[in-house]
Amino acid sequence: MCTDQDTSSPAHRCAILRTRAGPRETLHFDPHDPASAAAIVSCGGICPGLNCVIREIVNMLWAYGVRRIYGIKGGYKGVMEPEEWLELTPEKVKDIHTEGGTMLISDRGNPPHLESLAARDLKNPSACLQTGGDGTHKGAMQTFECTMEIDHECAVVGVPKTIDNDVPMIDQTFGFDTACTEATKAVNSAYVEAKGNANCIGLVKLMGRHCGFIAMNAALAARDVDVCLIPEMDIDLEKVLQHIEHLMRTKGHCVIVVAEGCGDTLIQSSGEKDAGGNKILADVGPWLKDTITARFKTLGLPLTIKYIDPTYMIRSVAANSYDSTYCSVLGQMAVHGAMAGYSGITAPCQ
Amino acid sequence: MCTDQDTSSPAHRCAILRTRAGPRETLHFDPHDPASAAAIVSCGGICPGLNCVIREIVNMLWAYGVRRIYGIKGGYKGVMEPEEWLELTPEKVKDIHTEGGTMLISDRGNPPHLESLAARDLKNPSACLQTGGDGTHKGAMQTFECTMEIDHECAVVGVPKTIDNDVPMIDQTFGFDTACTEATKAVNSAYVEAKGNANCIGLVKLMGRHCGFIAMNAALAARDVDVCLIPEMDIDLEKVLQHIEHLMRTKGHCVIVVAEGCGDTLIQSSGEKDAGGNKILADVGPWLKDTITARFKTLGLPLTIKYIDPTYMIRSVAANSYDSTYCSVLGQMAVHGAMAGYSGITAPCQ
Amino acid sequence: MCTDQDTSSPAHRCAILRTRAGPRETLHFDPHDPASAAAIVSCGGICPGLNCVIREIVNMLWAYGVRRIYGIKGGYKGVMEPEEWLELTPEKVKDIHTEGGTMLISDRGNPPHLESLAARDLKNPSACLQTGGDGTHKGAMQTFECTMEIDHECAVVGVPKTIDNDVPMIDQTFGFDTACTEATKAVNSAYVEAKGNANCIGLVKLMGRHCGFIAMNAALAARDVDVCLIPEMDIDLEKVLQHIEHLMRTKGHCVIVVAEGCGDTLIQSSGEKDAGGNKILADVGPWLKDTITARFKTLGLPLTIKYIDPTYMIRSVAANSYDSTYCSVLGQMAVHGAMAGYSGITAPCQ
Amino acid sequence: MCTDQDTSSPAHRCAILRTRAGPRETLHFDPHDPASAAAIVSCGGICPGLNCVIREIVNMLWAYGVRRIYGIKGGYKGVMEPEEWLELTPEKVKDIHTEGGTMLISDRGNPPHLESLAARDLKNPSACLQTGGDGTHKGAMQTFECTMEIDHECAVVGVPKTIDNDVPMIDQTFGFDTACTEATKAVNSAYVEAKGNANCIGLVKLMGRHCGFIAMNAALAARDVDVCLIPEMDIDLEKVLQHIEHLMRTKGHCVIVVAEGCGDTLIQSSGEKDAGGNKILADVGPWLKDTITARFKTLGLPLTIKYIDPTYMIRSVAANSYDSTYCSVLGQMAVHGAMAGYSGITAPCQ
Repeated sequence: MCTDQDTSSPAHRCAILRTRAGPRETLHFDPHDPASAAAIVSCGGICPGLNCVIREIVNMLWAYGVRRIYGIKGGYKGVMEPEEWLELTPEKVKDIHTEGGTMLISDRGNPPHLESLAARDLKNPSACLQTGGDGTHKGAMQTFECTMEIDHECAVVGVPKTIDNDVPMIDQTFGFDTACTEATKAVNSAYVEAKGNANCIGLVKLMGRHCGFIAMNAALAARDVDVCLIPEMDIDLEKVLQHIEHLMRTKGHCVIVVAEGCGDTLIQSSGEKDAGGNKILADVGPWLKDTITARFKTLGLPLTIKYIDPTYMIRSVAANSYDSTYCSVLGQMAVHGAMAGYSGITAPCQ
Repeated sequence: MCTDQDTSSPAHRCAILRTRAGPRETLHFDPHDPASAAAIVSCGGICPGLNCVIREIVNMLWAYGVRRIYGIKGGYKGVMEPEEWLELTPEKVKDIHTEGGTMLISDRGNPPHLESLAARDLKNPSACLQTGGDGTHKGAMQTFECTMEIDHECAVVGVPKTIDNDVPMIDQTFGFDTACTEATKAVNSAYVEAKGNANCIGLVKLMGRHCGFIAMNAALAARDVDVCLIPEMDIDLEKVLQHIEHLMRTKGHCVIVVAEGCGDTLIQSSGEKDAGGNKILADVGPWLKDTITARFKTLGLPLTIKYIDPTYMIRSVAANSYDSTYCSVLGQMAVHGAMAGYSGITAPCQ
Repeated sequence: MCTDQDTSSPAHRCAILRTRAGPRETLHFDPHDPASAAAIVSCGGICPGLNCVIREIVNMLWAYGVRRIYGIKGGYKGVMEPEEWLELTPEKVKDIHTEGGTMLISDRGNPPHLESLAARDLKNPSACLQTGGDGTHKGAMQTFECTMEIDHECAVVGVPKTIDNDVPMIDQTFGFDTACTEATKAVNSAYVEAKGNANCIGLVKLMGRHCGFIAMNAALAARDVDVCLIPEMDIDLEKVLQHIEHLMRTKGHCVIVVAEGCGDTLIQSSGEKDAGGNKILADVGPWLKDTITARFKTLGLPLTIKYIDPTYMIRSVAANSYDSTYCSVLGQMAVHGAMAGYSGITAPCQ
Repeated sequence: MCTDQDTSSPAHRCAILRTRAGPRETLHFDPHDPASAAAIVSCGGICPGLNCVIREIVNMLWAYGVRRIYGIKGGYKGVMEPEEWLELTPEKVKDIHTEGGTMLISDRGNPPHLESLAARDLKNPSACLQTGGDGTHKGAMQTFECTMEIDHECAVVGVPKTIDNDVPMIDQTFGFDTACTEATKAVNSAYVEAKGNANCIGLVKLMGRHCGFIAMNAALAARDVDVCLIPEMDIDLEKVLQHIEHLMRTKGHCVIVVAEGCGDTLIQSSGEKDAGGNKILADVGPWLKDTITARFKTLGLPLTIKYIDPTYMIRSVAANSYDSTYCSVLGQMAVHGAMAGYSGITAPCQ
């Protein structure tokens, strides 16, 4: 891994980098050079804070002096359509942080990178800032390798984006705190339903393809969760069902939270993949609802299950105060690294 | 209909009443008589403001001097289990208005009323305050008729409860404004998803079994809705699909809101009924999602649909400021009417 | 008052009008005439919903076919500076409803109208839509009279704006419901402070220059208010102080809400006026705090007062769902009236 | 500092401790001993999360088996009035986490500790859990020393509480994130006011007696702040005023955030102290408003300042999701430490 001292190394020397905050003593690119340009790509699903990161990158590039800043719509696919690139200025991104989603339309998929570089070369970016998940960073790596192949100096900088918070090398990913805040509301709803109806289970499925961070945090924050199932656990379904039966017999209601990723542990998915190359998980929420319903039918016990899948209502909100502050820092760091000529991923130091 | 002047009429003379706000000159019951008692029943699904109404009824009964106030858990079924009745005081309901749902567990179903009266007679309520929908008010009418049959003086007072707002004789039902507020958030989420993803439709199903009030109000409040389908409309599905195709071809995204009640107009339900005697509607949300998806597959157009069903997250929140104020008034009016000996439903005058 | 039937009457025949919703059979102005233009003026303090009204007026004018729509910055003063007028389109107002305040900077003051008409004539508006309070409507009347004097056909349409809700001829003014929602939060804060500290009074001053609507509604919604003082009441201060003493001796805390307008009833103001011609009221909040503090000092009783003045935090938020829906209707009605040639004020029928 | 290995050391051997999360192998106290008791004291101003911490401490003590849990009202003063102590159970604290403030009334002041111990001995707590700021922890130290003097075994455990976040040894204090969330709303209000009125400055004073964490975070989160003044800075007032003049001349509005602690740097306080021994700071908000107003009067420039002091509206809200989760952990850690016999302060490891 590159260290802070390597400020002289050209952009394409260093593929994995954790940049440090603050302006560098030495810039690798001259931001005032009219040829200097930067492109911003946003891939994968929407996530709270995306607009904050975009806004901050634009403002910081502008503060450095860069005047050709392009926003690429439609992820990597959009790279191929330079005539569709948006010319971004501080004025154009002024209020976007108050909106959820992304001003750059997200899309999945990954066209051949050398071709996309050809397209990109038309506008000659010396910095390419990308935010997305696993697939996006693999793509960024390919982009980086292509730039080396054709000896084009371009800092390829990633800003890791996953609402699930499962990036080991950083404390927290942006959007995660907002997601927990919204997820807590869904859990509260499940609790109110469970308590306010006769023989009622409130069941909530929360995001987390391979991890239970959102499920666990929301369960702790809401405090009225009886059962929280996450993919990190080795779950004995029979014991879970017996415990649910016990809860319903004793207090007459309960709240269950299950992480999406249990669709790959509790049950088996078909193995199909989506356009972004991610395995399509079996939908564990309705499955669990049906499984519990069947058990209670066998037992002859009365039951109502109120099932809540708040996925889109969680991920579409604007960044909360915590994530808004955090995205300020992330966006600035990404630009500092790019201007100093680093390729790599942006992460606050621990 | 009884008028305000009939303050001398015994409780069981008047079955349909729109009471007027404010204390009456003449009380029919003596609230300070130790035999005076009141029972509160809450039926049907939960609705924002239920706890506010319960709190206000308890406080106002207490202010009149009634000291035996019973909260019946589990709707009409709970009437049969007087040993489970809660003894309510202002202290016990002090903070319930800050919580969604109902402190009295809701249930559907309607056991024979004469039997239930027998049970109720054990505790001898001179006022029975009921909040619920159609079924509940039919039940209240039966209760009223039973009281007449056995010549037991008891003011049977209903507080109309439907989150859908479809009670013709009153301007607005409690909980409706809160529901619109929360529904607007769901529509905003759909808009953010639609705008932030490639070729994306945001589709939201909103409550309204026989009416489109929530759908219509949320669409107006959110302002970014392209298509709003409500059961009051005579919908030409083919035209709707063509319009959606047009929107996707021209601006690349759209937002659709469909009211639950279109499950009885756009499609046919099986005719089955739930425990409360309400017809189970076909689920129009997933049906519409599938219908649009099939059309776009035929057309060979790319499409993602983000479908949001926020039902439980809407109806489980606490009353907003508007409904909280409104429920204060409703609860007080219900008690004024009961103390004056009126049976009937509680509604603000227009 | 003009009736709906007068659609043939020229714009300047009818100065006070309550328009009715919906498009008219007969238009007075031809919206497709390239000479057709409309100007929007926003005066006085900011109020939730202003941006919604502006957005709706622009969209509805556009839907009629009007293509020259001007947003005038700085109230009537801005009328004199036509070079500063904003050219508004649906695209420019697309997202403004999600922001508080007004995209047209508010200002107070009222320059001579014939002069301003001269300025306005440069751009020849056939409709002038104004939102503001008393002063603004007086100004609108002067504008109307000037248009008659110089025989210039221009529908002068007012949309009454007062967060205080004190316009007798309409049920509710826009922004009022949002204000009550936010005010309720301030009252809740006062309650939490009062209950969470020893010997503590939570004191909140709420808007309402001549009326107590916000104070009263927030007190009802929050439900934990012990004393609510509004200008409509004839207040015996000594009794109020004795009641406060009683509350503190018995339960150790209390919550007091006082409406701004008591600064003209409980105490006397100096009689000075602000730039908009409104009398500057004495600030009743700090006065009441000092008065209570002095009394408790005399009594030798321990006391902490937590005083909250949430004025700017209330009026600066975006319209809530209720007001957003309502402003849709108001803005549309204003344009329907203007296109039909009516001058007057816009109000939903009761 | 004690280490984790000292589980055999009696409670009064170790006065400063950073406990580690999780149950210990060896308990020092036998929670099932009927003589085992614990007392909870809450001092100083209210702070989001206080009720969460209290709830978690009660639940965790209960889970260990302790059945005599006392909540002391009124801070250290309340220690002297054991007849006023509340007997706490999981049922009694069930819903308190949804409310701001503290169920234990806060008070400042610090009576002689040996006397208070006499009072406390009546109920013989083997664990005393205290949450508060500097003064409280000094008090806790005195309590600890008294317990040693009289050889009474009692784990004295502090949970650091300061909404300002200025405790060096821990990453973040509880309530701070919630405070930043609410403070951001106040800054947004200031921005809307500044932008929506002619020649307008939005000025917000935010908490932070000796630090600018809340001011800084809210400024970053809100993103529209032009000037942020914190006590850690060496401020050249003349330069600040010149910059403000420049902003008003160029863009016509600006937003200023000033931390409370600048009342001890920008200006001098009188040196008086409050009941808790904290120096009373000069109120920097109104002072800055007056200073800017005077400058603009001298310059002959038009100006309106909208001043917002949201202190009580910030600190009185319930913990947000982040703080709610965090307080779960803190409360559990405090009890784990106490049961293991440690005295000290509770802090997550870094």
